[in-house]
Amino acid sequence: MKVTDVELITFACRAAGSVDSHGHGHPGPEYDTRASLFHISTDEGVDGYCLGGSNTTLHLARQLVVGEDPMDRERLWQHMHDYRSSHIDGDIGVIDIALWDLAGRATGLPVYKLLGGSREKVPAYASTMCGDDLPGGLDTPEHYADYAEQCVSEGYRGFKLHTWMLPYSADVKRDLAACAAVRERVGPSIDLMLDAHHGYTRREALYLGRGLEELDFHWYEEPMYEGSMSSYVWLQEQLSIPLVGPETIGGLFHNRAEWIVNRATDISRYSPGHGGITAMMKCVHLCEAFNVGLEAHGGGHATLHVLCAMGIPGEYYELGLLHPQHDYSGYSPYLNTRIDRIDSEGYLHAPQAPGLGLDLSWDYINKHRV
Amino acid sequence: MKVTDVELITFACRAAGSVDSHGHGHPGPEYDTRASLFHISTDEGVDGYCLGGSNTTLHLARQLVVGEDPMDRERLWQHMHDYRSSHIDGDIGVIDIALWDLAGRATGLPVYKLLGGSREKVPAYASTMCGDDLPGGLDTPEHYADYAEQCVSEGYRGFKLHTWMLPYSADVKRDLAACAAVRERVGPSIDLMLDAHHGYTRREALYLGRGLEELDFHWYEEPMYEGSMSSYVWLQEQLSIPLVGPETIGGLFHNRAEWIVNRATDISRYSPGHGGITAMMKCVHLCEAFNVGLEAHGGGHATLHVLCAMGIPGEYYELGLLHPQHDYSGYSPYLNTRIDRIDSEGYLHAPQAPGLGLDLSWDYINKHRV
Repeated sequence: MKVTDVELITFACRAAGSVDSHGHGHPGPEYDTRASLFHISTDEGVDGYCLGGSNTTLHLARQLVVGEDPMDRERLWQHMHDYRSSHIDGDIGVIDIALWDLAGRATGLPVYKLLGGSREKVPAYASTMCGDDLPGGLDTPEHYADYAEQCVSEGYRGFKLHTWMLPYSADVKRDLAACAAVRERVGPSIDLMLDAHHGYTRREALYLGRGLEELDFHWYEEPMYEGSMSSYVWLQEQLSIPLVGPETIGGLFHNRAEWIVNRATDISRYSPGHGGITAMMKCVHLCEAFNVGLEAHGGGHATLHVLCAMGIPGEYYELGLLHPQHDYSGYSPYLNTRIDRIDSEGYLHAPQAPGLGLDLSWDYINKHRV
Repeated sequence: MKVTDVELITFACRAAGSVDSHGHGHPGPEYDTRASLFHISTDEGVDGYCLGGSNTTLHLARQLVVGEDPMDRERLWQHMHDYRSSHIDGDIGVIDIALWDLAGRATGLPVYKLLGGSREKVPAYASTMCGDDLPGGLDTPEHYADYAEQCVSEGYRGFKLHTWMLPYSADVKRDLAACAAVRERVGPSIDLMLDAHHGYTRREALYLGRGLEELDFHWYEEPMYEGSMSSYVWLQEQLSIPLVGPETIGGLFHNRAEWIVNRATDISRYSPGHGGITAMMKCVHLCEAFNVGLEAHGGGHATLHVLCAMGIPGEYYELGLLHPQHDYSGYSPYLNTRIDRIDSEGYLHAPQAPGLGLDLSWDYINKHRV
């Protein structure tokens, strides 16, 4: 089989929300936007798709993927990675995910079975937007507790607070107050996690971590800038609560290896955005060699398939980002069905269609193509 | 798809050779023996096979694999590994390899493409039997040189000496004399490796390693008992020649991780015998996270597929064990074609048939079934 062409399908859609000065999303009004779908076609009529992609994705794929056997995922991955540029890890990810989708469609298998299935469903935790000052939103500890109670009543088995980050003023005492209010409201049986302002000092991060230990939190993410691995080594030495990371820094799974062997983390973190399913599976296997779990960052089809193929935790699927004043469900008209709907017990189920199981609405996409 | 049954097909065949008091193979007369083939069958008529297997394999598979979806390789691997017994790593390997064969047959893909292909062919090195006292065999440095010259003339690009091990007396000076004779005969452009007596002291291993450096050897394997990782840390600190290992110890890829982070090895080593293709790919990905290569131990269909799927070196396929007085080619009447035949440039080519590409002679097997 040969890749004959790649294209980026761009189409108009509606979204809702606002982005603050520091890049964090919040509820907001509807607006017009565009979405994209990366498409690989072959001489055997088999296609591969991944939502997302940019002109860089297209350029990279035209250079290195067109004319090649799409089943040579490892060779193509290494070839793209030869650029050694963290700026294109996301583009490599889109191409690699589309190649996995293609392989699944070619073989009739959902991606997680192609990888070697491990489980059929994964529990999801509700992951909030960052703190804000919207009345009745995520503006006070009490409102975090209200929202956690709502999420638990919907079936979620875990709840992760993103608390206040810039431009809202970050404050470990207010963070802890929100965490305490949530714990008090949902009781001891719900797993709670915190992803706090990423710019605390070591002393602030330690104070916050000790508070979370008292509240029996399940894990603790990224209280400090991750460029300083040493800060996490320092923090881990003094805390018993699991530290989960790194999330945002580059260096792919190689850097996760450094964090593990330097004892900067208890549980690693990865998403297919860092070089695709191929790269994420390398990270999963790295973690397994050290008996370290890996929590997936964010959601999406590729992430769900990896979670259902991993033999180690990956305990949870991160579902969000959620907010009491934001309708998360309304804005994917290009998908006939969404995968991120929990069942009554809080689980997401692996799509069973061949490939990623993207249930694309071609009616919508063709009608809104730009 | 469900596994409906597993069986161990045992059949008579001829072999040749002898095994010394310490378990090393040497040339010898023909004798009658038995071979086995592990077989998984499913309710959809798709089968999976792996050469080898024992009653333990069969028992394990009956307990844990029959009734399950054969595409759930990761779940089944974890389930078998839950025994945490290194005694069954080989049995897990046979079952896992048969599951990969089955997945390839079910999807129409050779296993290396199912894994995500990386290359179509791999160079092989000629790997000798251990030293002996057979006149004109591997009994003197000159005869090693004669044989190396013959192998190079046949197309091999690399040559690995196994020198004298117990019950023949091991001696670093004689080892070095053999290595020097081979280097002198084949010239500087052939990659040479040494796998010496596994029971030298640190001082002997260092002496031998320094000699190999002077002879520009390509790598150096297992001069000491691998139970002592510290001995390899000590040795590596003082040598520039790459140390390859560990090979024989248990602990799967987890232990390879320890050797890497403790700087006991430059290049890791693994075979599908340690838990199958699934486990070997975990080791490949672990090594990649540390920019460490991995040389496959031994040959066979599963190993060749992994080598063709790896994105990192795996530089060579180990072909052997060879001896000037042993006809390596004559003893697999149950295979219509063998994969371990080098082309004129010294390469082995990945089988292109679905699954492992075992070209079984059912005529032979059925006629000699016991």
